[in-house]
Amino acid sequence: MPLMKAAVFVEPGRIELQDKPVPDVGPLDALIRVTTTTICGTDVHILKGEYPVARGLTVGHEPVGVIEKLGSAVQGYEEGQRVIAGAITPSGHSYACLCGCASQDGPGTRHGFRPAGGWKFGNTIDGAQAEYLLVPDAMANLSPVPDALTDEQVLMCPDIMSTGFSGAERGGVRIGDTVVVFALGPIGLCAVAGARLMGAATIIGVDTVPERLAIARRLGADHVVDFRAGDPVAQIMQITDGRGADVAIEALGTQGTFASSLRVLRPGGVLSSLGVYSGGLNIPAEAFGAGLSDLSIVSTLCPGGKDRMRRLMDLIATGRLDLEPLVTHRFRLDDIEQAYDLFSNQRDGVLKVAIQP
Amino acid sequence: MPLMKAAVFVEPGRIELQDKPVPDVGPLDALIRVTTTTICGTDVHILKGEYPVARGLTVGHEPVGVIEKLGSAVQGYEEGQRVIAGAITPSGHSYACLCGCASQDGPGTRHGFRPAGGWKFGNTIDGAQAEYLLVPDAMANLSPVPDALTDEQVLMCPDIMSTGFSGAERGGVRIGDTVVVFALGPIGLCAVAGARLMGAATIIGVDTVPERLAIARRLGADHVVDFRAGDPVAQIMQITDGRGADVAIEALGTQGTFASSLRVLRPGGVLSSLGVYSGGLNIPAEAFGAGLSDLSIVSTLCPGGKDRMRRLMDLIATGRLDLEPLVTHRFRLDDIEQAYDLFSNQRDGVLKVAIQP
Amino acid sequence: MPLMKAAVFVEPGRIELQDKPVPDVGPLDALIRVTTTTICGTDVHILKGEYPVARGLTVGHEPVGVIEKLGSAVQGYEEGQRVIAGAITPSGHSYACLCGCASQDGPGTRHGFRPAGGWKFGNTIDGAQAEYLLVPDAMANLSPVPDALTDEQVLMCPDIMSTGFSGAERGGVRIGDTVVVFALGPIGLCAVAGARLMGAATIIGVDTVPERLAIARRLGADHVVDFRAGDPVAQIMQITDGRGADVAIEALGTQGTFASSLRVLRPGGVLSSLGVYSGGLNIPAEAFGAGLSDLSIVSTLCPGGKDRMRRLMDLIATGRLDLEPLVTHRFRLDDIEQAYDLFSNQRDGVLKVAIQP
Amino acid sequence: MPLMKAAVFVEPGRIELQDKPVPDVGPLDALIRVTTTTICGTDVHILKGEYPVARGLTVGHEPVGVIEKLGSAVQGYEEGQRVIAGAITPSGHSYACLCGCASQDGPGTRHGFRPAGGWKFGNTIDGAQAEYLLVPDAMANLSPVPDALTDEQVLMCPDIMSTGFSGAERGGVRIGDTVVVFALGPIGLCAVAGARLMGAATIIGVDTVPERLAIARRLGADHVVDFRAGDPVAQIMQITDGRGADVAIEALGTQGTFASSLRVLRPGGVLSSLGVYSGGLNIPAEAFGAGLSDLSIVSTLCPGGKDRMRRLMDLIATGRLDLEPLVTHRFRLDDIEQAYDLFSNQRDGVLKVAIQP
Repeated sequence: MPLMKAAVFVEPGRIELQDKPVPDVGPLDALIRVTTTTICGTDVHILKGEYPVARGLTVGHEPVGVIEKLGSAVQGYEEGQRVIAGAITPSGHSYACLCGCASQDGPGTRHGFRPAGGWKFGNTIDGAQAEYLLVPDAMANLSPVPDALTDEQVLMCPDIMSTGFSGAERGGVRIGDTVVVFALGPIGLCAVAGARLMGAATIIGVDTVPERLAIARRLGADHVVDFRAGDPVAQIMQITDGRGADVAIEALGTQGTFASSLRVLRPGGVLSSLGVYSGGLNIPAEAFGAGLSDLSIVSTLCPGGKDRMRRLMDLIATGRLDLEPLVTHRFRLDDIEQAYDLFSNQRDGVLKVAIQP
Repeated sequence: MPLMKAAVFVEPGRIELQDKPVPDVGPLDALIRVTTTTICGTDVHILKGEYPVARGLTVGHEPVGVIEKLGSAVQGYEEGQRVIAGAITPSGHSYACLCGCASQDGPGTRHGFRPAGGWKFGNTIDGAQAEYLLVPDAMANLSPVPDALTDEQVLMCPDIMSTGFSGAERGGVRIGDTVVVFALGPIGLCAVAGARLMGAATIIGVDTVPERLAIARRLGADHVVDFRAGDPVAQIMQITDGRGADVAIEALGTQGTFASSLRVLRPGGVLSSLGVYSGGLNIPAEAFGAGLSDLSIVSTLCPGGKDRMRRLMDLIATGRLDLEPLVTHRFRLDDIEQAYDLFSNQRDGVLKVAIQP
Repeated sequence: MPLMKAAVFVEPGRIELQDKPVPDVGPLDALIRVTTTTICGTDVHILKGEYPVARGLTVGHEPVGVIEKLGSAVQGYEEGQRVIAGAITPSGHSYACLCGCASQDGPGTRHGFRPAGGWKFGNTIDGAQAEYLLVPDAMANLSPVPDALTDEQVLMCPDIMSTGFSGAERGGVRIGDTVVVFALGPIGLCAVAGARLMGAATIIGVDTVPERLAIARRLGADHVVDFRAGDPVAQIMQITDGRGADVAIEALGTQGTFASSLRVLRPGGVLSSLGVYSGGLNIPAEAFGAGLSDLSIVSTLCPGGKDRMRRLMDLIATGRLDLEPLVTHRFRLDDIEQAYDLFSNQRDGVLKVAIQP
Repeated sequence: MPLMKAAVFVEPGRIELQDKPVPDVGPLDALIRVTTTTICGTDVHILKGEYPVARGLTVGHEPVGVIEKLGSAVQGYEEGQRVIAGAITPSGHSYACLCGCASQDGPGTRHGFRPAGGWKFGNTIDGAQAEYLLVPDAMANLSPVPDALTDEQVLMCPDIMSTGFSGAERGGVRIGDTVVVFALGPIGLCAVAGARLMGAATIIGVDTVPERLAIARRLGADHVVDFRAGDPVAQIMQITDGRGADVAIEALGTQGTFASSLRVLRPGGVLSSLGVYSGGLNIPAEAFGAGLSDLSIVSTLCPGGKDRMRRLMDLIATGRLDLEPLVTHRFRLDDIEQAYDLFSNQRDGVLKVAIQP
């Protein structure tokens, strides 16, 4: 039985490169030889034990690769094709998928939802930080990469870009809106780009790291707010002339940014939440208008599936945006433990790392 | 200067019938001679001092009446017409109105939103529990009552019916959905009726008062849950075979019902909040799926405007529902203090009272 | 190789019961033993040669049955379960499915749409008027029938009910709308029921057959218009006091009903088209307001998939509507040629026939 | 009674500059001193007698100006403010406005829609090609111009930009879509810009005039198709690799472009029509998939109202797009007959003319 290298969650605080068997390919699966992958903030939550996964699981959910082997029932693809798959891999055939809620994909019972059930890689099945990756429900999830695009150009599609854009999409950004994005890590930066793509007239990014504020400007922010320079809510109200934002996107996952997102909204506005929260959240009384302000709070898990991936790659192919600047560091898979060390400690201005098996 | 009787907020704990001048009619206004009005739970919050309004303000926001006098710039109406106006009276010309958010109607400045600003009667201007009522922006708000309908048949349109239905509408109820309504006061009962009208397949009402549970069944609930008989979340999960609800409507305004509403949702579900909350709210960690469950929380203030009123009256005219059973008691305006006493103490199975000047 | 009886399209004008092999079951398929099925107006188009299908194809697309055999990759079902499948059987994994357009399901290429490609039974693969039916992509399409429901109670779900309701859904019917349905065959009758379920205040049905007008009233029509009694557009304008309809549903497929549907709309209204048209269509100049009237024309193919079927069966289970009265005649599969004769000639007040192998 | 100069429709073929009285200001009106205006293709239809208006009417519907006098009931503005008003001036208080269909604004009767009723300037009341313009329902329609923007920068907001963008908005353009725009006059060019603003990945413009194709590229088109070089449908199918477009925007108003727009759509696509049609339209049989292809045809009249204008000016203020290149010629009001001559004959590469009283 052939072996491969894989980054495995051993215990809180330890992700190690180990040898594991190359997986068997079931009828609906595809085996991908991973050519590039990356580390996500969620992987760091896993590393730290803040988000629990099974010991021995291969982590990672952002694959770019080449089809090595197709399951017996998979049609429409060829071995050797370059593909990506989304971080979320909906089956296509669950009740959740068929009622328009694919990220909450559940088992084939009468009702069929599972919280965040579409997120399988590195969560409930082995993930992408390995030499090979088994993609379930391959026909719903494999999306061919156009020849003109490099691995690094499409590396953000599986998660960061899809998630960030969904912040703008689920916020219902309309032409001419004012949008605020709280926290400008990779997902927040993509939320800025998404708000820009959907026609926001005024985009305000909030963070403290100068490099991130600078990239936010390049991706479409009209204003950046450094919250160390004073209450960001007050700064935003000044920028918007007291009106507030139509949509506020929370891209961090803390009580503080959540509450500030609510506070900057005009009546009738939408808080679009992308953060992963480790605990409960408080809705401050004065920010919620006693329930009479027509406010909305929507939370979104990264949309997946091959059509989503196709759309995102098309945007890159036609030059709508360029996310390669987010790749600040590169590592070989053999050195992934160093990559985790750098990334989890946010050293050296790291935004995203490219990992190449 | 002619005088009229009006129910006035004097101080927390005291609403009194007083003599006040009949108001002058500005160019965009209409003066209505009130023929029937009612008391809302929100008026009780005002009475108790839980929702602050100016001392001396006439309370009430649910008018049925006859046009007494039209402002000089008002066209399209005649004195003597029977009309209603919504509890919320959008101007029609604010930025809020023109961007689809009429209940948050604000002043005519560049940005023009005000939290709950469309709610004027008995909140920021004199209200409907009086012999006469001045309706602002009359052309946007006066809706003629079809001859065939009695005052009591349309008495729920201005607030209760519009608000309750909006719970289902903003929840995005789709054909075949499962909807839970927490608390079956007049608004919750109308939310049940609204969910039924929008095609929910399964409607579950939660309360403890047997009369309310019975009316809920008449208005469309398939199941009723008495939360004194055990944890309502567990009961609902059993009824739905573990699936949970697509939409949960909160119609009370407490932390408990808010949290339970969130807990009964399937992943991707919507909490549609109609309650008036006196403080902050907590989103329990386990109910929010760490932000990864595609949940939405939407809050809604009663939709107003003459087209909304027309639609609601049309539904009554064609027999879609009959809300007269909600009128359990009748009082003359002279006896409104007794009506407040009964209603605020929820005595004698009261649901709604009709007040006739 | 075991044989079964099947109604086969031989040539225009001839559908015959023949012996065919019971189909082999591929990994994603399920074999259903059909217990009840029916004939659709579309099958009559096929019979007459107006809608071309391959000679030798088994016709029919409305199955109720029992799982006889599951494909090797199918999970979540058991042999012996009672199930239905929609007339449209989306794969779940096509680009069309994954971008929210499942009825236009196409092959697994980069783009993947095919006009009406989700309609496979009796169109591109063998259909349901047979002893056995092979259901493709079984996990996306098999929907268990609740024990309490009979075959005839759910017989309208696969096509008629799903299609009729979609007329109201795609028309965007809102609470309080006025909806007109042109032609009250089985689909038009279900469109009436769908408009009622979605909260229309006023529903107007147009036809000439007294029995159909009577059933339309039972299913929710407030007014019925017999177009032999005069121009239906004029009658509808009178009923609506000159306002016109918010939504007009075309449920026949002729130029006349199409144009009338457009003519009864208020500015900004929606023509929701369900008809199958045998030729081009003309949009009359005066009905389209020179393109300045914000009118919409939307066409819809029957939504399928197991979640849709579940929702429709839930509505029947909770008593929202009863479509059994549409079943006016019953035949054994052996007598299906007689059934076609009766149904295609619309004799004896036939609405739908139940066919039992 | 003071006089002013105004371009008046005299008879088909003749628009003349005449002296007319400066209008009186009613309570809800504002009088604007026009500083810049322009000529629209629709004005040419009026000139040619193809779109009928009353003889003696002042034409034009695209004003930039300064508030000269406010009606007695108008609040929130000051005389001397620089403002624009949309080509469409909804009242804000009609049934049409209050049900979300402001461009079809109608009189204050019970039902209140009028086809294209929101278009008043130069259609049903005196228009903007004059020294002074009376704006009805001023509070709903006057939108202050930010100091930093010149008249010419905002000159496209009242009609061209609002209309063009609405083609993309009503088409429901989603992130990653493929959009085709047929005809690249000023409105088609703005439709290209609108599709770009809403996140289309691939935009294809169709025209023959090289200058227009060039500007289309600058405003966001990825591909341009010269229909003299061959069947545009075939060219577009080649560009899209056989897939077709998600949205096709018709921006001319002819049978040919309408039919081609339908033919380039993928199943489930949307034809978004902006053209003004002088006669009926034909939907070709093969392009409509017999009604089974889930196609939509939506037509849109320019959205107006002050919030729309604010949003469009905000986009210009933050540099999202620059439409000044569309202003190819400038005239004084005194020379407007020459301007009509140039514009109606499409001489000298004219796109839009700026007219300054």
